[in-house]
Amino acid sequence: MDLFDSVSPLDYRYYGREDSLVKELGQYFSENARIKYQARVEAALANALAKKGICSEKIAKEISEAAEKVSAEEVYAEEDRIKHDVRALANCIRAKVSGEAKPFVHFSATSYDIIDSANALRYKEATERVVLPALKELEKSLIELALNEKSTLQIGRTHGQHAEPITFGFALAEYVDRLGNRIKAIGHAKDSIVGKFSGAVGAHNAASLFFDKPLEFEAAVLHELGLKAALHSTQIVAPEPVVDLAHAAVSAFSVLANFADDMRNLQRSEIAEVAEQFSGKQVGSSTMPHKRNPINFENVKSLYKEFMPRMNTVYLDQISEHQRDLTNSASSRFMPELFVALIICAKRLNKVCKGMVVDKASMHKNFMQSRNLLVAEPLYILLAYYGHADAHEYVRELTLKAKQTEKSLWELAMADNSIREYVNKFTPKQKGTLSNPEQYVGIAEKKTEGICEHWSKELDLQ
Amino acid sequence: MDLFDSVSPLDYRYYGREDSLVKELGQYFSENARIKYQARVEAALANALAKKGICSEKIAKEISEAAEKVSAEEVYAEEDRIKHDVRALANCIRAKVSGEAKPFVHFSATSYDIIDSANALRYKEATERVVLPALKELEKSLIELALNEKSTLQIGRTHGQHAEPITFGFALAEYVDRLGNRIKAIGHAKDSIVGKFSGAVGAHNAASLFFDKPLEFEAAVLHELGLKAALHSTQIVAPEPVVDLAHAAVSAFSVLANFADDMRNLQRSEIAEVAEQFSGKQVGSSTMPHKRNPINFENVKSLYKEFMPRMNTVYLDQISEHQRDLTNSASSRFMPELFVALIICAKRLNKVCKGMVVDKASMHKNFMQSRNLLVAEPLYILLAYYGHADAHEYVRELTLKAKQTEKSLWELAMADNSIREYVNKFTPKQKGTLSNPEQYVGIAEKKTEGICEHWSKELDLQ
Amino acid sequence: MDLFDSVSPLDYRYYGREDSLVKELGQYFSENARIKYQARVEAALANALAKKGICSEKIAKEISEAAEKVSAEEVYAEEDRIKHDVRALANCIRAKVSGEAKPFVHFSATSYDIIDSANALRYKEATERVVLPALKELEKSLIELALNEKSTLQIGRTHGQHAEPITFGFALAEYVDRLGNRIKAIGHAKDSIVGKFSGAVGAHNAASLFFDKPLEFEAAVLHELGLKAALHSTQIVAPEPVVDLAHAAVSAFSVLANFADDMRNLQRSEIAEVAEQFSGKQVGSSTMPHKRNPINFENVKSLYKEFMPRMNTVYLDQISEHQRDLTNSASSRFMPELFVALIICAKRLNKVCKGMVVDKASMHKNFMQSRNLLVAEPLYILLAYYGHADAHEYVRELTLKAKQTEKSLWELAMADNSIREYVNKFTPKQKGTLSNPEQYVGIAEKKTEGICEHWSKELDLQ
Amino acid sequence: MDLFDSVSPLDYRYYGREDSLVKELGQYFSENARIKYQARVEAALANALAKKGICSEKIAKEISEAAEKVSAEEVYAEEDRIKHDVRALANCIRAKVSGEAKPFVHFSATSYDIIDSANALRYKEATERVVLPALKELEKSLIELALNEKSTLQIGRTHGQHAEPITFGFALAEYVDRLGNRIKAIGHAKDSIVGKFSGAVGAHNAASLFFDKPLEFEAAVLHELGLKAALHSTQIVAPEPVVDLAHAAVSAFSVLANFADDMRNLQRSEIAEVAEQFSGKQVGSSTMPHKRNPINFENVKSLYKEFMPRMNTVYLDQISEHQRDLTNSASSRFMPELFVALIICAKRLNKVCKGMVVDKASMHKNFMQSRNLLVAEPLYILLAYYGHADAHEYVRELTLKAKQTEKSLWELAMADNSIREYVNKFTPKQKGTLSNPEQYVGIAEKKTEGICEHWSKELDLQ
Repeated sequence: MDLFDSVSPLDYRYYGREDSLVKELGQYFSENARIKYQARVEAALANALAKKGICSEKIAKEISEAAEKVSAEEVYAEEDRIKHDVRALANCIRAKVSGEAKPFVHFSATSYDIIDSANALRYKEATERVVLPALKELEKSLIELALNEKSTLQIGRTHGQHAEPITFGFALAEYVDRLGNRIKAIGHAKDSIVGKFSGAVGAHNAASLFFDKPLEFEAAVLHELGLKAALHSTQIVAPEPVVDLAHAAVSAFSVLANFADDMRNLQRSEIAEVAEQFSGKQVGSSTMPHKRNPINFENVKSLYKEFMPRMNTVYLDQISEHQRDLTNSASSRFMPELFVALIICAKRLNKVCKGMVVDKASMHKNFMQSRNLLVAEPLYILLAYYGHADAHEYVRELTLKAKQTEKSLWELAMADNSIREYVNKFTPKQKGTLSNPEQYVGIAEKKTEGICEHWSKELDLQ
Repeated sequence: MDLFDSVSPLDYRYYGREDSLVKELGQYFSENARIKYQARVEAALANALAKKGICSEKIAKEISEAAEKVSAEEVYAEEDRIKHDVRALANCIRAKVSGEAKPFVHFSATSYDIIDSANALRYKEATERVVLPALKELEKSLIELALNEKSTLQIGRTHGQHAEPITFGFALAEYVDRLGNRIKAIGHAKDSIVGKFSGAVGAHNAASLFFDKPLEFEAAVLHELGLKAALHSTQIVAPEPVVDLAHAAVSAFSVLANFADDMRNLQRSEIAEVAEQFSGKQVGSSTMPHKRNPINFENVKSLYKEFMPRMNTVYLDQISEHQRDLTNSASSRFMPELFVALIICAKRLNKVCKGMVVDKASMHKNFMQSRNLLVAEPLYILLAYYGHADAHEYVRELTLKAKQTEKSLWELAMADNSIREYVNKFTPKQKGTLSNPEQYVGIAEKKTEGICEHWSKELDLQ
Repeated sequence: MDLFDSVSPLDYRYYGREDSLVKELGQYFSENARIKYQARVEAALANALAKKGICSEKIAKEISEAAEKVSAEEVYAEEDRIKHDVRALANCIRAKVSGEAKPFVHFSATSYDIIDSANALRYKEATERVVLPALKELEKSLIELALNEKSTLQIGRTHGQHAEPITFGFALAEYVDRLGNRIKAIGHAKDSIVGKFSGAVGAHNAASLFFDKPLEFEAAVLHELGLKAALHSTQIVAPEPVVDLAHAAVSAFSVLANFADDMRNLQRSEIAEVAEQFSGKQVGSSTMPHKRNPINFENVKSLYKEFMPRMNTVYLDQISEHQRDLTNSASSRFMPELFVALIICAKRLNKVCKGMVVDKASMHKNFMQSRNLLVAEPLYILLAYYGHADAHEYVRELTLKAKQTEKSLWELAMADNSIREYVNKFTPKQKGTLSNPEQYVGIAEKKTEGICEHWSKELDLQ
Repeated sequence: MDLFDSVSPLDYRYYGREDSLVKELGQYFSENARIKYQARVEAALANALAKKGICSEKIAKEISEAAEKVSAEEVYAEEDRIKHDVRALANCIRAKVSGEAKPFVHFSATSYDIIDSANALRYKEATERVVLPALKELEKSLIELALNEKSTLQIGRTHGQHAEPITFGFALAEYVDRLGNRIKAIGHAKDSIVGKFSGAVGAHNAASLFFDKPLEFEAAVLHELGLKAALHSTQIVAPEPVVDLAHAAVSAFSVLANFADDMRNLQRSEIAEVAEQFSGKQVGSSTMPHKRNPINFENVKSLYKEFMPRMNTVYLDQISEHQRDLTNSASSRFMPELFVALIICAKRLNKVCKGMVVDKASMHKNFMQSRNLLVAEPLYILLAYYGHADAHEYVRELTLKAKQTEKSLWELAMADNSIREYVNKFTPKQKGTLSNPEQYVGIAEKKTEGICEHWSKELDLQ
């Protein structure tokens, strides 16, 4: 198929192109990969059968080798004929082995022994090999940026309004912490993923024909793949472990979206504290040649809006009637898309972070805009501390006066005899802060360092 | 790209294969189609410019012909270079025309004049040419089935419990009516779709350099495409018309899902009133050779679960800051997937309906199971009508007795002297219904006919 | 119950307080109202029965009067006893009428004849009497504001970046148009709402015992309420009309949320173009006495995030198995909450709009920030028009130079001999626009007027 | 307020009534409780201040006692005046203490130090004291039921079609396992909940005026409440711990919904394997006195549909711009509703489980319906094992014959000379299973026991 004949933007735009940032995810999440993982489970079954003495080592080897050669294309052709996907896979393997080996292909298995174990394996391996590494790379870039900017004064904002001073590094440390936390959550969820080999309704009916201890047989098959068995399964493995993984991914996506929102707001023309790097050839607008738009940040938010609601599908798919209905079959095929989208965003943000332009002059200018009012908080708290009974209300009214007169709060306060008795008690250091709001940054710098150190260590980022 | 290297199930499984039911949707919803539609808008612009005397007819023709030749592949290559998609398209057209024509390519337009008008056009045309026809085909099949089964006695069910008699045709008429209603809603929404040509922020800034009446110029460009202009637009057209279309599609999808749920429940082993046709070669289960599963009905429900929650994305995309932010850009690229999925389901259900196996013997058997109790309702209502002050409670207690004795309610009622005075007033026809619950079907047949006739006419189904 | 013992914020915070903006919605959406509407349907049934000669006028009157007196409290007490809500209602009415009248209470009806018709009625009346009027009031305020500010120069923004000039009134006209459109959609959806009186499974089984034309009887009952009958119904009315109403409400909510987002971004400290009015006693922050936060705009966005996703419930509730299951019963009870929340937001925004502070000086200051670059678009388009073959690229590079030199684009352009030949062709008016970017506002003002006029007329706003 | 004047079904129907199953949740989730928790945090602050020597023990005691006396009513009245909720709380406490103590009320705190820590505490305590105990009670009932029915033969079903034998206890063990797993997940999430006391923008700006080690001060305040501090916080605590708790709750809700769906399907008239207990006075239908509906199971599914989609709100609320915007304020007030709904369902299911009617005769009858075909799987596997090269296809065709002839598969197989050579190799035990499909239940019973034991121990259920 011509790439541009496809209808999914994920294929034609975000994953399928030669230079896609997430090309490697194809090894886990393309349909070719899906079939390959299923064939790997069929091979694991044959090997376990041999170890348990049900078939010979030679037969197991024959089946394993045949399984490796199966392609999605031939499986789909066979499925077209018989209308059953896993039986099609089994037929394709059978067609490649001797008559003696044929009976042991897919022996005693039900389709979902194969499908669910294959899915468990590819989610586990994709998470270990691509998802977590990509998120850790981003975490490293955020840490580097946060440490670089740990002392860069910035006005802290709540409700989009100037609040109290922080440093830009401290603002970034928020995302170091939250992303670190989500990386841990994804790792934790991944470790809970399990497979199954319990047959058509989960009671090991078929395996019980041959094994006294079918649980041991199940464990043996899954051991070939590095998986553990679910405590209970029906035709399918209980969905919760994969649901937890999806939740961890979606909630990590929210963190990326929040970071992207913060940055694109800081890139507004009037704020202009940060900017995405812009290449020399890059066009900002088809009609406004002067534009410099935060397109990567916007793209991350947009993909988030596309993928976050799909969590509802994941929850709905937890429900499968009796020993299973098939109404989760088509929908669960779409789950890998979530991880593809998340990793596109992580890699894109990583690139942007590495080249992010921080405009310290703008940060300083914005800070200065509210300089006169910023000390409202420390002033009111110090007045209260030194005994003023209604300090918050006093300062609230003083701010109105400061706005009218365009004088600084501290200047007005020093000139006001009615509070002289309290102000006289202020220590020099406290007065220093009130004169220089730049100093009212608390422990922004130190906390930034602590958080960066914590997550470097916790996630073993070298 | 190898089809099976793609990651979206929509591509590798549902749309991309040679024999896909929805292949024709590629003409509207593939990336190639998307670029072609945008090029059509660029051509329309050139033609309108010529009509307004801004450029010559010759130049317009040159641009139109160049626009027709543009391929997604070259546009993407140019976008890789300059990082802007619509400017890339303009450059590709410019590269194919004379120096004289170059200035009039994309003349005075902003990217979203092109993108939004192209989207309006392809949604409109895809709806007219594929979506509505496919849903009408299904509607016709449902009408045929409903009329065929209009007199087939079936037990009506509420809460999954036997309730009162209906006919199977009447049960199907529910879907004739609800789908008919949704087809109308989709058509209505489609008719509200509009384009725009109002420039970068919607105030016709650029066009005002050349035209005294820029609204007329906008109308002229869109007229070339058979579109009308939005009353207000910013950089983008207001999202609501497309949101309404998506809603109409999703709510139609719910109707298909409900129908699928009903049918797969009727196909349960214990109920067995209907069945999907099964081909001779078809395999029901990889391990249980006797299985006959309602896989098409299940598939429809599953795709519904995947696509319905995406409506949240559509709502979130209604929000675009100021004269627009770009956070709806990636996400809105996914909207066509919704229509692809809906039409896959419609076509699949249509195929199933055409071959649906209706097991009248099972229907009759199930009906007979509750025959003894079914007349509880008419009995209580008639008793009430003829003056029994507490008929509901009387009959409720009688049903407990009927269950214990396995006698019919009517038999017990006739033997009960305490209600003799009321029973004596029952008309022969009323007594007939009580003796033959099969007759207690109300106007199921007539109503079925009426509904089928209504929608055949309303939707002009021949 | 103590109001603050309730657990729903809708009750204890947004609806239940004495001065709530939406108190009047209680007449439609409280549980007392719900029961009252159901009793109204029971009365309508009695009246229709009398008109059809099934019972006497006297009995109908007796039942109607009894129905008016029923309270939620007694119905709930009866439901506690018998575990059925509508039978409880019927029993409460029966307890208030003579033995002669008792049989005709709820005569031939099924619960959902009552519930669905009552819901249809209260949604219809609440929409007509509260929802549409509240939205129209907001629309009027927006129109007033837009017309007041139709000539107020503002920089148009895309991607949060300065783009081309507009007027603030034009920016507001976007919401006049989009909200107007949604008001129409809500009205349209409301007009499609229907009731039902077709019995337990929709085939008019019970009514057929007494009427030759049960459809006429159904029409007669509903006529008493000003409702029409659904073409098809099962035990319940098809959900689509109410689903459409919910969609219209949710998509209107998105428009309010977008408006709120725009305004709170314009209220950012660095932008400061608008502000919510702040009362003298109002506290902005518990610790930062100087803060002035856009809390109403934030509140609207927050309620939107709470209620928009509930549309998924509405879609899921379209699915009801066979002639109905009850899995939409509890969930559909929550639907009125959506309308309560929407109207809270509409009324709140209306109040804010009426007192909105527009800071024209800030608007002008922000506009001036980009003045030097704004003419990039008209300059490139004019160069192109007068024959420059690569105008977009030329101007793109010139903007880089303008940024370095802090000179205006037009100044640089006039000094550049390489484009002299084109510039010489510019008309005086065109040159005027390039010298005075304030003039590059297109038809912002005129379009604002047209849109306001259109919707005033269309919605009959006096 | 009259309970029935409220608009939220959660209040008027599910939580607010005297005999509500979840009355105790009011101690955590009513608005009165919310204010009480916030007052507790204000008291904790005073106590920590005293321990750090900022104020005297006496003052701390005074403040603590005042905090205990604050009511929601007075806080709301004050908020009406000053339009700020937490400052209103502080004012109410201040009004109850001496002038000397006033300055130390809310000293150095920002509103969200109070709100977020109070929320952390009430989520933690509600989870420990009500949510987990209620779910464990249900788990115990499920275990009891599963063990009681561990040997009760039932037909296993996939796709709603008869598949292979299981026991009813084994079917229930699925829910023992999945609910057990979710209980663990909820406990795990609860343990990660943290508070904050880092001031208006998270940098401990105010606290740094008084403390050299503000992190120690934060720890001290939270220690008073049994909470730990977030590693990083802005004005608010990072949302992820509470998001994880909501996810655990929603995914547990899915498990309850799945169980409810399974049971109500087993209660279908044609299946009739289980039933909700029905009280003597209970009315099944307002018009069909014979009905026995699975209303509790339906109700659980319906509440699930209402609450699951709200997870989208929780995800959207992860995004808060810069050091916080307020767009999560109203929406996060609704989060407790999720837990109220979940616990209603858990308690309701627990009641139903304790009285659940299991109809073993129906189970046996349903099993017998497919008896003839059930051995398709073991027959094909045994044939394969003993060397038949195409056993699946052979048996698939044999099932068609079995359906036509109404003979059992095994009977037909024994009569077929073409497979004699393989059948002769079958062991007596294997032949026994083929003759008695009842024996083909694998290790259903043993696995049931193992799972019940595992979770009893893991969750320490006595």
